[in-house]
This record gives sequence, structure tokens and C-alpha cells, in this order.
Amino acid sequence: MLSIRSRNGSYTVEPYSSFDQALSQARQENGFFSILDNQVESLYRPTLARHLAEDRRVLIAASEQQKSLEHISPVVQELLSRGIRRNHSLLVIGGGVTQDVGCFIASILFRGLNWIFIPTTLLAQADSCIGSKSSINVGGFKNQIGTFFPPKRVLLATDLLQTLPHDEFRSGIGEVIKLHLIAGKVPYQELVKLLGSSQLQNEETTMTRIITRSLAIKKEFIETDEFDRGPRNILNFGHTFGHAFESVTNFAIPHGIAVLLGILAATHLSRKLGLCSQEFYSALKNAVAPWCRPFGGELQSASVQKTIELMGQDKKTTDRETVVCILIREAGLLEKRSVDKEGELSPALKKFFQEELEGVLD
Amino acid sequence: MLSIRSRNGSYTVEPYSSFDQALSQARQENGFFSILDNQVESLYRPTLARHLAEDRRVLIAASEQQKSLEHISPVVQELLSRGIRRNHSLLVIGGGVTQDVGCFIASILFRGLNWIFIPTTLLAQADSCIGSKSSINVGGFKNQIGTFFPPKRVLLATDLLQTLPHDEFRSGIGEVIKLHLIAGKVPYQELVKLLGSSQLQNEETTMTRIITRSLAIKKEFIETDEFDRGPRNILNFGHTFGHAFESVTNFAIPHGIAVLLGILAATHLSRKLGLCSQEFYSALKNAVAPWCRPFGGELQSASVQKTIELMGQDKKTTDRETVVCILIREAGLLEKRSVDKEGELSPALKKFFQEELEGVLD
Repeated sequence: MLSIRSRNGSYTVEPYSSFDQALSQARQENGFFSILDNQVESLYRPTLARHLAEDRRVLIAASEQQKSLEHISPVVQELLSRGIRRNHSLLVIGGGVTQDVGCFIASILFRGLNWIFIPTTLLAQADSCIGSKSSINVGGFKNQIGTFFPPKRVLLATDLLQTLPHDEFRSGIGEVIKLHLIAGKVPYQELVKLLGSSQLQNEETTMTRIITRSLAIKKEFIETDEFDRGPRNILNFGHTFGHAFESVTNFAIPHGIAVLLGILAATHLSRKLGLCSQEFYSALKNAVAPWCRPFGGELQSASVQKTIELMGQDKKTTDRETVVCILIREAGLLEKRSVDKEGELSPALKKFFQEELEGVLD
Repeated sequence: MLSIRSRNGSYTVEPYSSFDQALSQARQENGFFSILDNQVESLYRPTLARHLAEDRRVLIAASEQQKSLEHISPVVQELLSRGIRRNHSLLVIGGGVTQDVGCFIASILFRGLNWIFIPTTLLAQADSCIGSKSSINVGGFKNQIGTFFPPKRVLLATDLLQTLPHDEFRSGIGEVIKLHLIAGKVPYQELVKLLGSSQLQNEETTMTRIITRSLAIKKEFIETDEFDRGPRNILNFGHTFGHAFESVTNFAIPHGIAVLLGILAATHLSRKLGLCSQEFYSALKNAVAPWCRPFGGELQSASVQKTIELMGQDKKTTDRETVVCILIREAGLLEKRSVDKEGELSPALKKFFQEELEGVLD
């Protein structure tokens, strides 16, 4: 069990042997309502029926659209119509989108409601489930609003990963690789070995180990910097690129894979700027490429200009001629830097799209 | 200058001699955008033009509708389209509704943005400007969502009260009377004397005194209980009734006056339950009645049953057969109590509507 310190008090991440077990735990809370990813609901109907009353479940679609202020309003109204009260808990079951929606609603409904989270995707289990954040879209602006509001408990069950579409599993591996790259050479190389297994998605013990380590790495950063004012920036490694890659391809690339491609692009830029070695870049590319295929192809025809514009719109940056990027010297040695759009970013990105993506196609 | 302790750090309430002075102060912040009540904008156009760039102002209507999640989305989009960034400040100028909208937006945009508040109504100046809360409607559910997110600075200017419609001024007096009733016999009786002046609204010095005292009374409660978990409940004196009176009359009664009628109803119930004396109730009615006229009439034909239902829907209550009310023994001696809907509340409210409102008509 992992305990995370937060301004709102500590909260726990508790591994259980199965989804069924995790649900039993959740039931011990006083009266609760749940927000559920509708795909999880259709996959686990009998299990859910054992634990959750039908009229206390609100189903949502795990889509970008659902993450908007406009689509959150009806969910809140449904909870209120069904009689949710401020002393109830909100049980949130799903992946990243469901977490964003559930966390945001918990933070504003009655000005703050206890919530419990059962993450069902690898991305949510190994990364987003801790860190307090919700990210919500408004109009065409992605992730520009949100709150910091951690759950009271996170209940982990790796058996849930077996029904996860493989693309989404790979998407989660993106953040796992990022976290281990940040942690240092030894943890990163250990991870690369574990990732070699062909049956990884079904290996509950290995996955629990990988997930627990990922969360332990992230814990240090979010405890030091819960409100994202400095140190936590490092966790955005690959994200300024990744978000732009998602947008410029109209979300044809899943988030975690966009982050992996973003890590690759950021490392490529780091090499161009003389920060890391060619060897480091090539080894990273070999480790990362298998998890990105075939999404690299989506980027080949993308506009460099448009991508840079999108990177400049990221809320983390506050200047118009440069973009703040997290760059890397080696595993465990990352730094934040303002990169000149015209002189540095544009040529590196052009070369990345035109030549470097060859290795991540198939 | 008053300083208020809060989880997000201390913030200040700073009295200035004029709106113009307050705006000069606000301008000292690094880059800012403003959200403005459109009525304030049309009343103070030349003053505003001296301090705020036109393309950085977003005007809103100070209506209940504007306080909804649905109507907040376009305001956020407008701020983003105009280029607001996370290192900017948000200057919010208006009354209670504008504060709710501005505070809510500041708390979710970029997951939290510095904001500065210039309250323009008596209600906002003497009461709501401190306490961190925002209250937002969703669908037909009033004030069920919101956040705790205090401004960095509150800039007071009582010259603004001179352009306030008299009904809104009286509405603010409602919360002022409530706060002084909570403070104790001496402050309450001093206030009753000051309220006797016929030119009160234009007496800047007296108003600054009344406002500063009101905020000093409220400060104790919100510092002890920023997140509304207990002691701060007392500040809801008159509100469970007041909110129901607003709803049941379809918002024909302004908020503060509904609270005043709520104070009267709560005191009437306190008398019925043997908590306060007939003398106390009668004196209170004499002091309060002139400020309620002619809105008492709106309630005479209201349904007791419907009012009680609406009181039960208040988020502060969590039971179905009783309603939690703040009751009063004398000035400075209030208590929270579960009141039985059928046996206690219903007959008291019936008598209140049928007989007691006679005194607050004209």
C-alpha cells in the first residue's frame, strides 16, 4: 500500500487481487453513487451487479467530448436527480477520461465530495490515479480548466488490464517508460527488460510490480509539488510534443502513444541541441519504437508549422517566440528549457517528421 | 485593512476612498483580464476606460442564469480566445453573481488563477467578498456546485453604493443585520441605531464602518471553518428559509430580503419552540420589517408544503423527515437544530405566512 501526502490529507493506493475484491472494499464506504465508463459496465456487468445498485450508477462515454464543461453538466444533474447528498461518496470506475470527469465533479459538487477511484486502464493505474489533477476541455480549448482534488482511496486491480484493448495498454506503457526514464538509469534498464515479455498484459504479478514502481516514482514529484509550480514540470517530459501530436492528427494517436512519440521527439531535439548522445537516442528509439507502431505514420504528413503553433498554445508556456520543453541528457537527468521556435524547434521537428519516424512505422 | 487567513494563504480586504482609487490599485498587478457586471460597465464607462483595456474586459449579465455551468463555459472561452494565460490575474468587478462566476472561473481556469475582487453591491462588500466560496447552479439545481477559492485581494470602495438600486441596497442590509445578530446584543443594538438614518446609502463613512464591522464578525467564522464543516453553519441563519422563499416565489424576492424574511421566519419558529421571548421576536420584527417591504406580500400566498420541500432540498440537510435550521435564543446565542417537518415546521410556517407577514407589507 502506498500513501500519498496531499494538502487535502493523505490518501492511499491499495492493490487488490481482483476487481471483485476492490469493489467489496469500495462498498464499505457509507452511501455512495458511482460514475462508470460504459465500456467497463458492459464488460463487467455480473461483477458490478454484485456490488452496485443500478439506480446509483451513472454511465458515461470515455470520449474527449465527455471531458467538456458542456457534457459534465448533465452528469452532475443526473447525480443530483438520483438523490446524491454531500455526505455520500462518489465511486469512479474507468480510465483517464472517467477520472478527469469524476475528479472534476467530486471537486465541485457540494464544493467537494469524497471520492474513491478504481482505475481500469494501465494509464490510469500506473500514472494518472495519483497527483490530484483533473483536466477538462472548454469549447475548442483542451485541458485548460480543471482542479486539484485527490481521491480518498485508489483501489488497484490488475486483472482489469486483461480486457483492455491492446492499443490502450500500449498507451499506458508510454507513461510507464516516461516515469522510469525520469527515475534514472537502473530503474529504466530494469523496465526495458520487463517490457520484453510478449504476454505482459496478462502477467498480473509483473504488472503490479511495474505499476507500483511507476507510482512510487511519481509520488516523489507530486508530494514535493502538488500544485504544479515547478519540480513537477519534469513529469511533462514528452507531453508538450505529445499534446501537439494528438491535436495535429485530430486525435488519431492515443494519448500515451502520442507521449511516447513526444518523448522520442524531445530526445531527438535534445540530441540536436547537444544535450544527449547519439547512442542514448538510438537505444531509446529501439526501446520505444515497438510500442508506437504503427502510429508514427500518422505524423509523417503533419504540418511542422501547425505543430509548433499547437505547442505554443500549451498552458505551460507563457511566451510567444519560444516554447518551454523538458529535455533529457540521460535517464535520470532532465531539464526545462526555453526552445526557440524558429531557430531550434522547427528544423529539429522537420527532420523528426521526415526521417526519424521511419523507424516507428511498419 | 483586514487580513483573512485561508488555506491558500492570507488575503486582504483594503478600503479605498473611491472606485477610481481601487482600480488604480488593481492595475499594479501584472497583466490582467477582467470580468465585469455589464451594468457596472455602463454606469462607470469613463472611470473604467482610464484603467482597463477594452479588449481585456469580458462583460456578463448579473443574472441567476449566468451563474450556471452552461453559461460559464462561453465566458471561459472568451477569456481564452483573448489570450489569458496562467500568469495573468483576473480582476472581477460586480456583485454576488459576478463574484460567484469570477471565483468559480478563477478556481478552475488553468486549475487556479490569481484573482482580485472589487465588490460593487452592499451584499458583496459587507458579506460575500470574504469566505472563499463560489456557488453555481446546474440545470434546475441552485447553488449545488462550487469551489472554495479566495481572491488575493478585495478592494473596497463605498462610493460605488451610490449607484446601487435601493432594493439591492436593502438586500445587502439583510446580511448586515444577520451578522450583527450573530455577534451579540451590543453590536446588534448599535447597528439598529445606525440603520435609522434616512440617507444611509450615501453616507460613505457610516457605510465603511458598517461594512468593516460586518466583515470583522464574519472573519472569525470563516477562519475557524473555511470549508464549512461546522461552526460556519451559524452564518446560514435565515438562509434555509430564505433560499426556499426565493425559490417558491420564483425569485420575485431579492436574495438579501429573502434572508431577512428567513431571519424573521427562523425567529418566529424559535419563539414557537420556546427558545426566544415574544419581546425579542417583536423587537426584531420592528427592526427588520421596514427593510422587507413590500416583499412580504410575495410570500403570503406561497404553499407551505412546497416551501418545506424546498427547504429539505437544501444541500445542508441530509435527512428526509427533518430540516436542519439555525435558531436563535437572543442576539449572540444561536444554535443548530433538526426541526420536524410535520410537527414543528409546518404549523409555524403556516402561521408565519398567514398572520406574521401582515407587518411587512405596506
